[in-house]
Amino acid sequence: MPSMSHDMDPEAFRKEAHRIADWIADYFAAPDRYPVLSRVRPGEIRAALPSSAPEHGESFDAILSDFEGVIIPGITHWNHPGFFAYFAISGSAPGVLAEFLSAALNVQAMLWRTSPAATELEEVTLAWLRQLIGLPDSFEGVIYDTASITTLHALAAAREVAVPDVRSHGLSGRAEIPRLRVYCSEHAHSSVDKAVILLGLGHEALCRIEADAEFRIRPDALAAALDEDRRHGFIPIAVVATVGTTSATSVDPLDAVAAICARARVWLHVDAAYAGVAAMLPEYHSLLKDAACADSVVLNPHKWLFTPFDLSVLYCRRMDAVRAAFSLTPEYLKTSESSDVRNLMDTGIQLGRRFRALKLWMVLRHFGAAGIRERLTEHIRLARLFARWVDESPEFERTAPVPFSVVCFRARATDEFNAALLDRLNASGEVFLSHTKLAGRYTLRLAIGNLHTTERHVARAWQLIQQLAAELNATSGASA
Amino acid sequence: MPSMSHDMDPEAFRKEAHRIADWIADYFAAPDRYPVLSRVRPGEIRAALPSSAPEHGESFDAILSDFEGVIIPGITHWNHPGFFAYFAISGSAPGVLAEFLSAALNVQAMLWRTSPAATELEEVTLAWLRQLIGLPDSFEGVIYDTASITTLHALAAAREVAVPDVRSHGLSGRAEIPRLRVYCSEHAHSSVDKAVILLGLGHEALCRIEADAEFRIRPDALAAALDEDRRHGFIPIAVVATVGTTSATSVDPLDAVAAICARARVWLHVDAAYAGVAAMLPEYHSLLKDAACADSVVLNPHKWLFTPFDLSVLYCRRMDAVRAAFSLTPEYLKTSESSDVRNLMDTGIQLGRRFRALKLWMVLRHFGAAGIRERLTEHIRLARLFARWVDESPEFERTAPVPFSVVCFRARATDEFNAALLDRLNASGEVFLSHTKLAGRYTLRLAIGNLHTTERHVARAWQLIQQLAAELNATSGASA
Repeated sequence: MPSMSHDMDPEAFRKEAHRIADWIADYFAAPDRYPVLSRVRPGEIRAALPSSAPEHGESFDAILSDFEGVIIPGITHWNHPGFFAYFAISGSAPGVLAEFLSAALNVQAMLWRTSPAATELEEVTLAWLRQLIGLPDSFEGVIYDTASITTLHALAAAREVAVPDVRSHGLSGRAEIPRLRVYCSEHAHSSVDKAVILLGLGHEALCRIEADAEFRIRPDALAAALDEDRRHGFIPIAVVATVGTTSATSVDPLDAVAAICARARVWLHVDAAYAGVAAMLPEYHSLLKDAACADSVVLNPHKWLFTPFDLSVLYCRRMDAVRAAFSLTPEYLKTSESSDVRNLMDTGIQLGRRFRALKLWMVLRHFGAAGIRERLTEHIRLARLFARWVDESPEFERTAPVPFSVVCFRARATDEFNAALLDRLNASGEVFLSHTKLAGRYTLRLAIGNLHTTERHVARAWQLIQQLAAELNATSGASA
Repeated sequence: MPSMSHDMDPEAFRKEAHRIADWIADYFAAPDRYPVLSRVRPGEIRAALPSSAPEHGESFDAILSDFEGVIIPGITHWNHPGFFAYFAISGSAPGVLAEFLSAALNVQAMLWRTSPAATELEEVTLAWLRQLIGLPDSFEGVIYDTASITTLHALAAAREVAVPDVRSHGLSGRAEIPRLRVYCSEHAHSSVDKAVILLGLGHEALCRIEADAEFRIRPDALAAALDEDRRHGFIPIAVVATVGTTSATSVDPLDAVAAICARARVWLHVDAAYAGVAAMLPEYHSLLKDAACADSVVLNPHKWLFTPFDLSVLYCRRMDAVRAAFSLTPEYLKTSESSDVRNLMDTGIQLGRRFRALKLWMVLRHFGAAGIRERLTEHIRLARLFARWVDESPEFERTAPVPFSVVCFRARATDEFNAALLDRLNASGEVFLSHTKLAGRYTLRLAIGNLHTTERHVARAWQLIQQLAAELNATSGASA
């Protein structure tokens, strides 16, 4: 009789694991067999499932049958070659295999001893990546889940440096502490807002600086804002510069911003979550050159480095400030290792941490640096090709430069027309694009970053865009 | 010629996925073939790996060979039946299969439309779990990664309620805002400290209340602290009560604490991360009865609900406060769905979120409620059995009651003797225990929660403990 404390039988696991391996292999062979944007209606998945847990265990046949019949129709397929929304990402096959192993090992890498390999492989892979993007070794790296959390840690460290007793005394009820302020471009990501709110600085503490015509922060406006705030008694604690903004993938002028931060003695955090990896390419060799003067940089391998979600990296020149903000060891987590052992819980708000380095390591080894460069180059080529088609079309216009693999464009028509066009495109099941506003105008975004996307898919997207715009024109009678 | 933008060939993926499926099945069949606590020395893994990324892609043979030869020796095996440290956890086989699927789908569930199934399956499984533990449906659930992040959200919501303009105005430079305070027992988890620090309240704002002889918060001391702080002009914003403290798994008296919080109009957050699932059992039926009056509850299925790490749940009666603290929709994330669609990014600091509900769903379906109850009951039985052996031994003593599946005990000897005993135990490769201090005394902890652990393993642990204590006694000449 098996013990009452038992897992699924290993041979049953083996059988189901093989079945799922085949399902995933078939899925990867044809991720376009499903509509890219899920077509379910709100509440439809919920209604298709029982309202309470089964009393008795069910067979994997039943579970996988519901997975295919109920869950899959409710999936928006981020692997679909027509996924062009937000930032198109790829959880590549080697990364998925690593996640399978990581889930099976189920290690919790809070302390070195709770899995030395998780801690040291993180050091090794982050050193590899740091070299590939050309950051100096004065930057120490650590892995978090998302850029939201990474930027939060960077700004918490900046707060720690600006108000050295903030850890003990906090911010409230202290007349002697003036308002603290953080600066970023009007195009910086909303994670900066959320971090500033969470840290107790108040949303008003975030000063969004005007950008130029190409959506890059204006250094003169930044310098003026810093000066003015100092005159009014505020304490500027950090500037967030972006390499690849979310809407237009614009790049803030790091050289000028870094000079301003150095002069003002303000923490510089560089949000290179999406575009930082482009620094691996000869053409973008100097992309992060001035980030070497930054205090911290965030880069997300789960965005454009083919690593399954989630894996975000903080590179920091002042990890001591992160540790000063967060390290705290209760008795039950004390270990007997020497003090030179690195315990990753010391650099984070999260005590528990998955073994995420494994997937980045397997991705870098499977593709190799040259293989990654090739793929990034191809994505950029496809984006430029699409941009040329837009530029050559009398009916469409580009709304931003294309520094990387995202194209911002719109039909030469009203915002409403463009919004309706987007809805029709996304209803096609063949492509999924998202939108933004640039210079006050509704803008479509075509983001390339998926390993399944080829020139054929980009050409098909352009064909669909033209065709649906023409149809919309015909039905609305409006001029596009 | 394949496109330059391509993933691993699907047939190559299939081959490697089958190979890894077999590796994991073999691993699950004998997780005790490795020493439980890794025996590598600091720096050993790092030294065994190249210092830079390969220029050209490598074969999976090479990658998996290093996985087995370099990484595995550096793994501390959380699946080993002799893993009794911290909280022993199990990423059960059905959960691991779900993680494999989730990694392959690689969906990002920030918005309903970016995968409706991820959002709605989260609602469905959290409703199942809520019913199983007996929380009323006034609690809305949301999944985060870790209890650290869940508790952070709960306390951010409490801050939002106490200082309604904190989101805009923050805490600094405002003479009108008094010091804010948070209360918990001296035995509450360090995640409460980290959250308080991050929120800008300052570590001093955390008032750790004395516990009774059984390590439960003293309600009279809590009430007195609240009164005294109010008299001194502080604003109490939250109390954190714990159901299953980290050291001793003690349970704070929720009824008395809830009454105090209601009277003081203070947010009550219940940290039931480890022990909350025990409420599924008839014997623990009333464990969370008074949590129904709490504002928020955290429960971690990755701890004692057989779900691979990471998956932490916040149940909240005032999710509006969480949304008030965090919801923020930039243009590029606006969607055309009706306002009754739930976008999970509105309840979190993290914009990106993995499809974590899938594993909880598969675990609940595979085991069924009855199957989970059986396993929890068995773990509790094993802990009580071990506790009896300790109680019956003249050489050992228990240092805390055993409300769940963790036994705190020590040799009747010095702290140094017990620390040395722990080191020897952990060097055995057969068991891994951790320690804490209770009432100032060094205490060993034997935590049961792994599905591979049976009575045989617990008996072997007890045998080893006695044997190594006797050996240590003999060599040291000291009396144990």
